[in-house]
Order: sequence, then C-alpha cells, then structure tokens
Amino acid sequence: MKNIFKKALLFLLPLGIFTACGTNNSKSNSALAEGAAEKVYVKPGDHDEFYAFVSGGFSGQLAVYGLPSGRLFKVIPVFSQDAEKAYGYNEETKPMLNTSFGFVPWDDAHHPDISQTAGELDGRFLFINGNNTPRIAKIDLTTFETTEILEIPNSAGNHSSSFVTENTEYVVAGTRFSVPIPQKDMPIKDYKGNFKGSLSFISVDPKDGAMDIKFQIIMPGFNYDLSHPGRGDSHGWFFFTTYNTEEASTLLEVNASQNDKDFIAAINWKKVEAFVNGGGGKKMATNYAHNVYSDETHSATSTMRKEVTVVDPRDIPGAVYLLPTPKSPHGCDVDPSGEYIVGNGKLSSNLTVHSFSKMIKAIEAKNFDGDAYGIPILNFEAINAGTVQQAGLGPLHTEFDGEGNAYTTFFISSEVVKWKLKTWEVIDRKPTYYSVGHLMIPGGNSRKPFGKYALAMNKITKDRYLPTGPEVTQSAQLFDISGDKMELLLDFPTIGEPHYAAGIPANLIAPKSKKFYALEDNKHPYAVKSEADTRVERKGNDVHIYMTTIRSHFAPDNIEGIKVGDKVYFHVTNLEQDYDVPHGISMIGANTSELLIMPGQTETFTWEPKKVGVWPFYCTDFCSALHQEMQGYVRVSPSGSNTKLSWSLGEDIE
Amino acid sequence: MKNIFKKALLFLLPLGIFTACGTNNSKSNSALAEGAAEKVYVKPGDHDEFYAFVSGGFSGQLAVYGLPSGRLFKVIPVFSQDAEKAYGYNEETKPMLNTSFGFVPWDDAHHPDISQTAGELDGRFLFINGNNTPRIAKIDLTTFETTEILEIPNSAGNHSSSFVTENTEYVVAGTRFSVPIPQKDMPIKDYKGNFKGSLSFISVDPKDGAMDIKFQIIMPGFNYDLSHPGRGDSHGWFFFTTYNTEEASTLLEVNASQNDKDFIAAINWKKVEAFVNGGGGKKMATNYAHNVYSDETHSATSTMRKEVTVVDPRDIPGAVYLLPTPKSPHGCDVDPSGEYIVGNGKLSSNLTVHSFSKMIKAIEAKNFDGDAYGIPILNFEAINAGTVQQAGLGPLHTEFDGEGNAYTTFFISSEVVKWKLKTWEVIDRKPTYYSVGHLMIPGGNSRKPFGKYALAMNKITKDRYLPTGPEVTQSAQLFDISGDKMELLLDFPTIGEPHYAAGIPANLIAPKSKKFYALEDNKHPYAVKSEADTRVERKGNDVHIYMTTIRSHFAPDNIEGIKVGDKVYFHVTNLEQDYDVPHGISMIGANTSELLIMPGQTETFTWEPKKVGVWPFYCTDFCSALHQEMQGYVRVSPSGSNTKLSWSLGEDIE
Repeated sequence: MKNIFKKALLFLLPLGIFTACGTNNSKSNSALAEGAAEKVYVKPGDHDEFYAFVSGGFSGQLAVYGLPSGRLFKVIPVFSQDAEKAYGYNEETKPMLNTSFGFVPWDDAHHPDISQTAGELDGRFLFINGNNTPRIAKIDLTTFETTEILEIPNSAGNHSSSFVTENTEYVVAGTRFSVPIPQKDMPIKDYKGNFKGSLSFISVDPKDGAMDIKFQIIMPGFNYDLSHPGRGDSHGWFFFTTYNTEEASTLLEVNASQNDKDFIAAINWKKVEAFVNGGGGKKMATNYAHNVYSDETHSATSTMRKEVTVVDPRDIPGAVYLLPTPKSPHGCDVDPSGEYIVGNGKLSSNLTVHSFSKMIKAIEAKNFDGDAYGIPILNFEAINAGTVQQAGLGPLHTEFDGEGNAYTTFFISSEVVKWKLKTWEVIDRKPTYYSVGHLMIPGGNSRKPFGKYALAMNKITKDRYLPTGPEVTQSAQLFDISGDKMELLLDFPTIGEPHYAAGIPANLIAPKSKKFYALEDNKHPYAVKSEADTRVERKGNDVHIYMTTIRSHFAPDNIEGIKVGDKVYFHVTNLEQDYDVPHGISMIGANTSELLIMPGQTETFTWEPKKVGVWPFYCTDFCSALHQEMQGYVRVSPSGSNTKLSWSLGEDIE
Repeated sequence: MKNIFKKALLFLLPLGIFTACGTNNSKSNSALAEGAAEKVYVKPGDHDEFYAFVSGGFSGQLAVYGLPSGRLFKVIPVFSQDAEKAYGYNEETKPMLNTSFGFVPWDDAHHPDISQTAGELDGRFLFINGNNTPRIAKIDLTTFETTEILEIPNSAGNHSSSFVTENTEYVVAGTRFSVPIPQKDMPIKDYKGNFKGSLSFISVDPKDGAMDIKFQIIMPGFNYDLSHPGRGDSHGWFFFTTYNTEEASTLLEVNASQNDKDFIAAINWKKVEAFVNGGGGKKMATNYAHNVYSDETHSATSTMRKEVTVVDPRDIPGAVYLLPTPKSPHGCDVDPSGEYIVGNGKLSSNLTVHSFSKMIKAIEAKNFDGDAYGIPILNFEAINAGTVQQAGLGPLHTEFDGEGNAYTTFFISSEVVKWKLKTWEVIDRKPTYYSVGHLMIPGGNSRKPFGKYALAMNKITKDRYLPTGPEVTQSAQLFDISGDKMELLLDFPTIGEPHYAAGIPANLIAPKSKKFYALEDNKHPYAVKSEADTRVERKGNDVHIYMTTIRSHFAPDNIEGIKVGDKVYFHVTNLEQDYDVPHGISMIGANTSELLIMPGQTETFTWEPKKVGVWPFYCTDFCSALHQEMQGYVRVSPSGSNTKLSWSLGEDIE
C-alpha cells in the first residue's frame, strides 16, 4: 500500500492528542457552580424536572435520564437486541428488527427528536435514526416502547436524520454516504458524478403517528451530515449540511477536506410536496421493511414495501438551493425564530450564520454563483447574516436558549461557547471533559427552548471517573445556563455513545405515562385471560403452551408429553393489573432470553429441548415474598415416546 | 384446572399489595441525612471512593457503579449478548456463550463475589453465577472483562452461588431446583426421594484464576437457595440454606411453605476435599462447556468437558450436617468472625442465628434430631446462638459492618434493620422504597468489612422516579451507616434487576486497571500490526480482510471482488496505543453488530452480502475531528462474476 495516508496520519494525530489532553484542569474549579451539589441533588422520592432522551450511538438504543440528577431510568431498546427486556428475542418483537437485508439486530442510533405541534415540543413521540442499515424508529412516549421502524431505501449511512418539521408533518432521513441509486455493480473509482445521495421526507400521520415515505429527493453524490427544519417564516424549508463535495471515494480525511466551502442544501419541501401531490416524481421499484408494533396484540408485524416515489430536484424549479458554507460543515441548526441557519465548518474556526430572509431575497434576485449538477448555488455574501469569529477549534453543533443566545460545541478545543445572535459576539466559554460532540438544551431546536440546563455529550473521559479497564465510559456534563455565565454542575457517565439527546419538561410526558395494559384489551392471538383457559396444544412438532402468571405461580406449572425435536412456544400472559408488577420466565437451556412481561401483556419465547429429562422454569423478576417458589417443570421424553401431553397446577399429573 | 391455587392467590396478594404501598412516605424525611447532597456529590473530575459491582439479575450482566455518587461507569457483559460491545456477536466472544445446550445468549446473573486472600477482598477477580443455564463466570478486574465461564452439570437454577472461600480456594455453585441426576425421562410426581440437588466446589487456580470443578456433592431433593463460607475458625466449612424440604413439585407457594423448619446444610469442604484427593467419589460421565477468553489472542475458546467427580455425603462421615432453621430460610450469612451463621426464614419474623462453636460441640456430642436421607440433623437448641425477635416481615439477607452490627433486609415490611450481634437487640430500622432484596456493605461478607455505606437493592419503585411507561426501573438506595443510626443519602435507579452487589474500596482496584493492549503482545491469528501488512485473502467463498484502524482511516478503505454468496470476515486491528482511543466498524446490512475495538486489540465480524452494489462501512466510535471521514466501500459483484479481488487506500482500484 502507498504511503499517501501518512499525510492523513500526520494531519490528524495532533488533533487526537489535543482532544485527549488539551484541556487544562485548572479551569475546572472556576467553571463549577456554587452549591452545585444541592442543584443536582433530587431528594429520594422527589422527581427530576426534565426528561433527557439520550441516544446510545453504537449501542443502538435510547437511554432515558432525569435532569438535573443525571440518573438513568430506562434503556429503551430500539435497533439492538436487548436480552434484559427480551426485545428482538421474543416472538412478538423479532419482526421489529427485520430489514431488506434480513434480521439486523443492531444499529447506530444518533439523533432523537421529539414530535412538535406549532413548533413546540408536544411529547407524543420520539423519532430516532438508525445510521448503519438506514432506518427511522418511533418511540411512543406513553409506553416508552419502540412502536414503529421504517427502513429507508436508496440510502447508506442514514446520518442527517431524524428531525421533525414544526407540526411533525415530516420526519427527515438523509443519506450520509452516497451510493449508486439504484444500487449496481460498478467500480468505486467511478464514484464522482455517478453515486447519489437521497433525502427522504417521511410523513407522520397526525392521528396515530404512522410513518410513510412521501418522497425521496435524489441529490448530488456528496455526504449529507446533519439537518434541521425551518420554523416560523422558514417553516416549509429544511436545511442539510454536506461535506465531501469533492466527491472523493478514498482516504476522505485528506481528500474530502480540500474545498474551501461545501454547502448547506436548502429544501423547500412544501414545493416538493405540491409537486408530488400533483403527480410529479417517479415510482421506483425497491424493497424496504415497515415494522409496526401494536399495543393491542402486543406484537409486531413486518411488511415489505416495494415502491418509493423519487424526485429529481431539477424537475422542480425553486425547490432546492445550495448555500456555500465553510468548511466541511457538520452541524446545521436553526434558531427559535427560524431566521438564522448556523453552519459549523468543522475545519473552520469561524461559525457561519445564514439569513433565511436574505436567502429568499437572493433566490428572488437569482443571485447565484453557478450550480452543482443543475442545483443553483447562492452567493455567499448575499445570504450571510454574520460570522462568529475565531470562536474555537472544531465547531460541531449549536443549540439555543430562547433568550437570543446560541451555544456551540468545539470538539478539538473541548469547550462550549456561548454567543449572541445578531451581534455574533462570544459571551462565555467553558471547558468540557473531553471532546464534546452534541449539546442539548431541552427544546433547543424548537420555537420554545427551556433554557435552564445545557447537556454536553463528550467522547473521551480517560481520567474523569474510576477506571474500568481499557474501555471507559463516555459522558455527559450538565451546565446551568440560567445566568450570564454557564456553570458546570455535574459529570455523569452514559450508556454507549451519548451521541445526541432530546430534552423535555417532565410535566409534558409524565401525566400521560401508561401504567399497565388492560387485560380486556389484550388481543394477542395466544393470550389467555384466566387460569381456567390455560392449556397446552400440540400441532405436529410445535407445542403451544397457553400460560398465565400471577403472584406467585405459573398456570400450568407441570407439563409432560414434550419430546426431543419439538419446538415449544411458551405464550405467557401476565394476569396482574397493578402498576409495577411484571413477571418473568425462563427455561434452562433455552437458546434465547427470558421474558419480562408487563401486567396485562402476553409474550412468547420458544424452546427446542435437546435432552431427555425433567427441566425447570421459573420467574425471573422478583415479584413477591414467595417469588422463589414461582417455578415449574417440563418433562421431556425421547422423540417418538408415547408420554401423554398433560399439564397441571397444584395436583399430580397421572 | 382445579381451584387449589386460589388459596395461594389469597395468601400472596395481601403481601403484594403491602410491598407495593405499605411504606409511609412520612418516614422519608426523618431517614434522610443532613447534608445528603454534599455527601453523595462527587465533584466533576473527582473519583468515587468505592466500586459497587451490581449484578443485573435478568439482564445477565454486571454493572459497575461508583459510590457514593451512584454513577454507572460500565455494564460488563457476562452471560448476555451486548451489541454495544459486540459481546456474543463478534467471532472472538461468541464461544463465551457456548453451553451443552448450544449457544445460550442470556442468563440470570445474581450474586457477584470478589476474590479473597486471608479472608479479605483482594480485588483480583469477581465471580458471578448464571442461574438459568447453570454457569459461573469470572471477570478480570484489571480489564473489567469476562474471561472465563464454566457450565455446571447436574444443576438446575444455579442460585446458591457464587461465593468464595477465604483464600479463594473454591467458588461454590449450588442447585436451586432439584432434578433427576443424571437426567432421565420420569414423571414429575415421582420427584420426592428421586430428584436430587448438587453442590459444586470449583477450584480456583491461585496463579491465574483458572476454574475447575473439583467435586459435586449430591444432596437430597430440596431447593438450595443461598450460601456463604465460613471464615476464621469456621474456615473449611460452607453453609447453604434450603427450602422446599417438603419436596413438593407443584404450587410451591403453598406446598413448600408447610414445614415449620427447613435446614441450613453445613458442608465441611476440607473433609470432602481430602476424601476426593484420596481417590474418593465417582467419575460421572456428563457434558459441560468451559469457555476461556485469552488477553493474548483476544479470543475465546470453548471446550466441552466430559466428566465430573461426584460424592455421596453419606460416604464421608462428618462432612455434611443439617441445621434446622425456621421457615423457608433464604439468606445464609456468616459474620466477620466466622462464629455466627444467620439464617433468615422468609416466612418467619424472627432471625435465627446459629453458633459455629456450638455446632462443633453438638457434632462432637452427636446431638442429633434424626437424619434426612442419611444426613444428620443437629438439635436446634444445641446450636442456637440467639434469635432476633419480631424484627420485621419477610427477612431476606444480612450483612455486617465489622463493628459488631448486622443489617438485615425485610422484603415485606420494606426496611433495613440494624441489630447487634451477641445481644440480638434491634438498634435501628429504616424504610426502603420498596421491597428490598439484598443489601451490600463493601466487604460485608468478609473478615474485614468497610462499614461506611450500605446499599439496599429494591424490587419496586412505582412512584420514586419519573415514570417510564409500564416498565419502571428497579433501584438502589444508599445509606450512611457510619453513625449509630442509618441515614438515607440517595436513591438511584439501576440496570436490570439489581440483585446483589459486591463493593470494594477503589484503591484496591484502580491502580491495577489496564489502559490498553500492547500491540506487540497481540497474538490474534488474524492481527496485522502495520498498514503494510493489510490485505484481503479469498479461500473459496470465505474472504478474510486483514484490516487496521488509526485516526482517521481504515486500511484498506476500498475493496472490490467480493461476490454475493461470499462470507466476508472483517478482522480489524486497532493500531492505536493510547488510553481511551477505541475505534468501531460497521457495515450496512450486516446481520450482527458493530465492533468496538480497544487500542491494540483485534476483533472480527462477518458479513454475508446479499445484494449486488457498492456498500459503505464506517467507524462507529467518534474518534477524532475527522471521524465522519473514516469510511470505506466494498463493491459486491454477482455470484460468478470475474471482478478481481483488490483493495486500496488513497488510490483508485484499477
């Protein structure tokens, strides 16, 4: 192999070293708030003021924390199997992880966004993207469960996702990597001009939140990194950062860092929507999974969809423009008014702010600097609202407090910088430990931020916590931003990579939180609603056990007549109808996980007994003082034996 | 089905209701320490004083928390797959989850115990049991990784595990459910007298910690619940609680709650060891997995073992005695001196304390009350040291502070009760929220407890935190026990079920924590140690990619000549040699997880491309300012195509 990459190495290693060690600890004390302990302490039994939904990055999940305490309440499984909750293991949730590539039990979850009404957080749903095998998931914020996953065709590296428009008309999903669209066998070196990106607009049904790809815009072969919606006057537009406008296909750390400016793509989605509603666009044959979990059947179904509507932006005059933005811009954030679009060139030390109203004027005046593949490039000066000069090194993301201030993270110089909209002056800066990525202010990307706390999410923590071997935690840092200066309150470690977060006042969600599933509404095909209906049925080699749990026994608890070679389905209904009384069940030697069954719910695991004998099962969730007595046995006879199929509770099988 | 179980229902429901609601919140304030916020606040960048290793119960994992902050630093995957770390997904760790039942990607992890030298915590290893498919795992406390898992044959519900003797000569594993030994096809109703329990003594190599089943004691068909070793004068003995001495096999909540007294089994393991060393016991043919992870090859191997030594206690005079203990005893705890063995009958309101010295005298005097299946039952009064009267409802577990005090948890009355050894008087009681199971004092089951904090682990939290739908977190509560009265400091939620924990001062572990793997010591068969050695090799339909990562590129980053129907092995070596610089990798459509590769380590994932096209891979762990540029492409040609196998970095493939 050639040594061209040595250039890359030399270029990057200093950054790496700087990010790891470049923050002087002496700043720590000056940044720490007076009375920080009292400010983050939530007295036992008291509740936190905010929910923070923190994506797990490469864990594929979503973690629910309380703020200001930094306590982790739940890890919601989204894209990855989770044995703790049987997600992706039980029969009911396995279809959630189906894709056009088959069962994909993992993804890389980056950007949670909470649904909005009139530009404000409404607390109904949370959307989050799967980066790797492109998917958008929806979490229901009454049950805190993943209830829908939609695969995104014609995409690769679904990174500039999943942000919502101000009435949740759409959630967007943008490709990070460009690929042949449709896919085909071709040399990688022919990337330039042949590979394409796609920006998907997924409609969200206002009633039930059902997702559907309304259209995909086929874009030039850049990398599409992040996005945010317009709001207020700019409602109807969506903005996406691009990098690798060089269209390099190897050693991007060098080859995609050449251009002085890349672009923010401005999409007038209302125009595209009208075009499509008028019959525009093409139906393209493809194949992608749509997975829906029903609270009625407690089960998911996976349907393969075969068609998507694609549009060429050159067919829709006025729909797409390119805003020149230095230099490999990463974050793309829109202030609460909708006027300012902040593009942070991660290889620039300046922050570039575009003006929406100037953009409209420039479009009207056709103030263009040429085009890229037929898409007009707007004149940089004509649209520029201002620049925050020399703010730091490696700017990434910006959030807003609703008081006219913006907060930008700097990865390389490891800090959060507060600056003023309109004057573009830096007001404050505080170190982070270390190498901050995203920042989150609850509602910070809506019309109505709740500017009390900011949460910095850091990639490196090497000396910040007790060591845990070579693998150390990533971390969040909580700042009080209610005063002029930011004050550091708390460091707390996180699950996976705390990639980004969405925060919301607790009172917008907590009152609607579901406490248990009503048994009478349970429409699971294998549910039984009383012990009188429990039974075992054989269909060839499949054996279905209709089982119930209640403190503290299974019905039935003894089963005979199972044979080696059978596939045994344990369909277990939890008859409890109280809050916080789950039961679990597991079986020795099962090649799957236990079940954790909420009150009123039915779940199923399968067991393929391999050995003759008498094998126990038991309750895995400590449910009562006699939990240890909650057990049963299955007798497994040899294949071909004539042991009668029978079951019982409280009496011997004869 | 008959209505016999209605009796059970009536019996248990009041307990359930009581546990959920029975604690009056007014107690909360009185229990809360003055200045609690300051006492638990660990200033950003400062370190916690203790590690708490909290088992995940039905999650199958082990969580590492700091005390007093309650912050979660790492979830160590043990028995369950973990997509976040690729544990159980990558080729290197999949063998760790092999068993005689095949690949079992989940278990129920209950009782962590830290290795000891001379009766004190030495911080070398942590052992933890898999309950469901009986296994004992060992975690190396320099790397915080699971490095050994040993399956336990002739066992079912491996609950009375995994506690160590005072020089870690043995870690024990006791069956919870009795079964036919060896397994056979027989009616469940013939349980009594025919099913057996087994108590396994696993030797631990003093040098490298390697585990090996030295012997299994075949015991009467009771349920074996918990255990603890003797220490001091009682070193050489081990104590196991039993319940279901009724030998019921159905509706145990009623049928196993009949006897007024069950037993603690006292095992003189030194006598059994001598018997076995002298050629005693029988070699029994069986089949169980022994899985070992090597830090040199960064890979695990799984070996099936075919034989185990079993002993009949009746063949070894003086080896096993039964100590009558009221009533379905659960916890079995030995005080720091080794003199007192506390057995908490979970259906009794009294705590029973046996005296080791009286036990020895009673044995010498043959003061027996008959026998059970040939095992002598000692006279209750002769061995009784004292009783803590009417201490609470539903006593479970006891720990010790080294100052002559014991702390017992009460599940039903939801409280921790502090009482005095020797006088048996209750000194203090504090409510827990709610339904406490285990309690942990660092070193609380050793000769040298660190009696500053006690951690109560609770099963029910319904109103204690912001709601998260029907599934709410389980929880821990931290008490300051340094004064006469316990003071509540902090509630913090936990991962999975916080079943039990092992705590240790941080300074016994942190200085030895490994920071990265030296590249020169990497003996992984597919490792490459420089980019010059990276390559791609085809062997039939298997393609092996020898790949490296360094900030911020893969070598190679473009690969062609892969075909549909191939099985592609990505063997990826992280060339970094700094602390906290992992890289990740994932591939669109892979039916497994990403990799998270520590510096100097090699890991492998497989990818079976299903579709023709050009498909991207990328780094999943945010590694530098140009992390977003760390990507590559694989060209997939149709099966049978003649696209040449080729790879590159920084130049086109021609």
